[in-house]
Amino acid sequence: MIHHEAATELNIHVGERLSIKNKNNKKIIAVVDIVSKILKTNEIAVSEDILKNLNLKNKEIVEVEIPEFPRSISFIKKKLRGKRLTKYEINEIIKDISNNSISETEIAFFIAAVFIRDLSLDETKSLIESMVNTGEKLNLKGKIVDKHSIGGVAGNRVTPIIVSICASAGLTIPKTSSRAITSASGTADVIETIAKVEFSLEEIKKIVKKTNGCLVWGGALGLAPVDDKIIKVERILNIDSSAQMLASILSKKISVGSKYILIEIPYGDSCKVTKKQAIILKDKFLKLGEKFGLNLEVVLTDGSEPIGNGIGPVLEIKDVLKVLKREDPPKDLEEKSIFLAGKLLELAGKAEKGKGEELAKNILNSGKAFEKFKEIIEAQDGNLKTIPTPKFSYTIKAKMKFKILHINNRFINNLAKSAGCPEDKTAGVYLYKKKGNIVEAKENVLTIYSSSKERLNHAIKFFKKNKNKILKTTHFLK
Amino acid sequence: MIHHEAATELNIHVGERLSIKNKNNKKIIAVVDIVSKILKTNEIAVSEDILKNLNLKNKEIVEVEIPEFPRSISFIKKKLRGKRLTKYEINEIIKDISNNSISETEIAFFIAAVFIRDLSLDETKSLIESMVNTGEKLNLKGKIVDKHSIGGVAGNRVTPIIVSICASAGLTIPKTSSRAITSASGTADVIETIAKVEFSLEEIKKIVKKTNGCLVWGGALGLAPVDDKIIKVERILNIDSSAQMLASILSKKISVGSKYILIEIPYGDSCKVTKKQAIILKDKFLKLGEKFGLNLEVVLTDGSEPIGNGIGPVLEIKDVLKVLKREDPPKDLEEKSIFLAGKLLELAGKAEKGKGEELAKNILNSGKAFEKFKEIIEAQDGNLKTIPTPKFSYTIKAKMKFKILHINNRFINNLAKSAGCPEDKTAGVYLYKKKGNIVEAKENVLTIYSSSKERLNHAIKFFKKNKNKILKTTHFLK
Repeated sequence: MIHHEAATELNIHVGERLSIKNKNNKKIIAVVDIVSKILKTNEIAVSEDILKNLNLKNKEIVEVEIPEFPRSISFIKKKLRGKRLTKYEINEIIKDISNNSISETEIAFFIAAVFIRDLSLDETKSLIESMVNTGEKLNLKGKIVDKHSIGGVAGNRVTPIIVSICASAGLTIPKTSSRAITSASGTADVIETIAKVEFSLEEIKKIVKKTNGCLVWGGALGLAPVDDKIIKVERILNIDSSAQMLASILSKKISVGSKYILIEIPYGDSCKVTKKQAIILKDKFLKLGEKFGLNLEVVLTDGSEPIGNGIGPVLEIKDVLKVLKREDPPKDLEEKSIFLAGKLLELAGKAEKGKGEELAKNILNSGKAFEKFKEIIEAQDGNLKTIPTPKFSYTIKAKMKFKILHINNRFINNLAKSAGCPEDKTAGVYLYKKKGNIVEAKENVLTIYSSSKERLNHAIKFFKKNKNKILKTTHFLK
Repeated sequence: MIHHEAATELNIHVGERLSIKNKNNKKIIAVVDIVSKILKTNEIAVSEDILKNLNLKNKEIVEVEIPEFPRSISFIKKKLRGKRLTKYEINEIIKDISNNSISETEIAFFIAAVFIRDLSLDETKSLIESMVNTGEKLNLKGKIVDKHSIGGVAGNRVTPIIVSICASAGLTIPKTSSRAITSASGTADVIETIAKVEFSLEEIKKIVKKTNGCLVWGGALGLAPVDDKIIKVERILNIDSSAQMLASILSKKISVGSKYILIEIPYGDSCKVTKKQAIILKDKFLKLGEKFGLNLEVVLTDGSEPIGNGIGPVLEIKDVLKVLKREDPPKDLEEKSIFLAGKLLELAGKAEKGKGEELAKNILNSGKAFEKFKEIIEAQDGNLKTIPTPKFSYTIKAKMKFKILHINNRFINNLAKSAGCPEDKTAGVYLYKKKGNIVEAKENVLTIYSSSKERLNHAIKFFKKNKNKILKTTHFLK
């Protein structure tokens, strides 16, 4: 914020940019707001972000000037027009996002351009390199493995189980996850219900050295930090472009130094991608993996139905614990976790081709995976005793007998989100029945949870309006 | 802004939306910011916009609740995915832009989607209708004519001349202009150097009744106000989609009630459109004109070179006055104004086919057009005596003799903008020579003006870096 007289003198207007330089010549570019009362004509006020970034104190003298028009704006426009960007141009955009030289609105234009125009493999490679270069790196020794699902399947919480299995098998698996983008909860949101997920790189090194694994949020680490800024804007519209997805995933993997990477692409009806798109995406992953010299494998899975019974952070951690503790686990979640863990054990040479699943199952049944999970959670300052409980709930019961034909990932996600997911950890949806199950009259179909009465009412309203889109059944509910 | 405890209770986060309802049940949706000190837990603070809109007083009690997710967001996403929008869907988006229910970032996604995916004629028609319906209308009697250029040609200030000629010929021409979008100045910016351009609809009616014409800014009138909100976001990237352009132009024309409309599409090298695009655009204009029952004519003009000598508000008003006063006028500006005025006189039946130019020329030479212009300027509280002068200038001289082969509209515009146009009225570029002219060694080529020393230095830097893009000559400058 600058005084309006200073603004007139500089001939600068609301929404334009100024650069602010501290005594060490560190410069930051900020968007201008103009005030007339709070400030004196030779004073400026800055956000806490800038305060921190430039290490400023109250009453400190700074140098303010009109910066040149950021070149990245014209590169964003070039992409909007459908032209290919050079490595230099992509790097300029990412650098400017990284140092806050361009606004959220400008990032939205970039996201839309990439979403519609797509990026070539070389452009994607440049994007990944720029993202890695503007961030921190995790330097660990040993055989570092990693897995990632492109998401889109509600409840699909296989990661904590896979990490526990692989870490007990002696692999190093420093798993960083993003928070939910288009889903009701991400792995970081889920783990956060029982442990801390925000650590410094040094702390993570200690956790991994001790336990072979971790389950942390990638955003707080400064690994490819631009990714999180982009995701923040993508979330506004709930979109996720293929190129941005590739870059987002691989930049994090490269930043943590993993050389053995398993990518899961769920496809299907209410999923992010169709089978055809999944095959195209797989091909891109493999080609990029090759460009970066990685041992990368991609598995395509049927993602047309939700996995597990709970959708929402707290409900999902409960499902995970059922699998790890071998106590009445959701079958689909258990099977999928074993399948993927097996693949990763094979990829990293811990099991022969075709023997991975067996090893994974043994580790799970032996209780070692659960022990490993507790170890990791404890190393992350957590424990299994303090899972929060939701304040409000509402259960949908069947009016008459019917069979469930399909549960739509997108709509069940939106239902959980309308109840407050992912910010409200206790919010979500518990599915008593899945595809193929018969529901008797008066039996429970699902329960909606929320910590806000108002959000719960919204979710109920959302359910009633969309029940035939959420659930396909032989008869209508109620 | 709400208190962080209230935010926790409502389970709402920064960037999410809240609706605020006043005692008359008028509701507005606003984006949330969270504070911990300034407010009490049961207090909120609102922007002046909201204050005005809801007619609130300090300490007034308002009702705050979590609104439903705006449906328009999903329609914007639908367009991003390349699907056609229904009339209802477009209307929802425009309504939400109109009442501030969606943010600037979301508008950016909409603009990018329309820019890349384009709109069908029916979608464009719906867009125009929604824009007209969310705005005010000017109800005037008589034969109302109007003209519009899609712009892109630097300095092309024909409008004040055409309005003066047509109004003296007895036509009613309530000309509303937008401010500059991609150019260094728009007609409203130019007129504002000598008169007011912001009036209420009632005031405009009085001006037009008195003088037959006006030269005002459309934005302040509330005619299709959504258009100005969209343009504000388009300016960030300096883009202008074909559908948005059609809607922007026709919504204003329909709102002022004109039935006889002349559209100019300049095409060419450094113009907004190529000849091929101009022909496509012409076709769309004609079809939309038909859909709305208008007498609409489109002329394609060669727009590859700047028109007039001055680029920038003050420099352009000086060129306009030279034409109107018949004092050493820039030939190209004079000829083009006569040509377009002639077309409009024919279209509205004031001259026979083929006789319009002659009539326009006679009116101009008789001094009537200048008298009419003075009348309009006076009616708009202006006068011709107080044209502001720039503080700083820098003249580029030729080092050796050369011939000018081409002056690039886009780069000369950017040069004027780097000097502070359009906000800085005195900023701009004066061209001593045009295409085809010989410049002798040491002769002036152009002068850059600015009211800020810093902006002037930026402009000089911009010129030096881009001189071969701004001017194509037989020899290099300096």
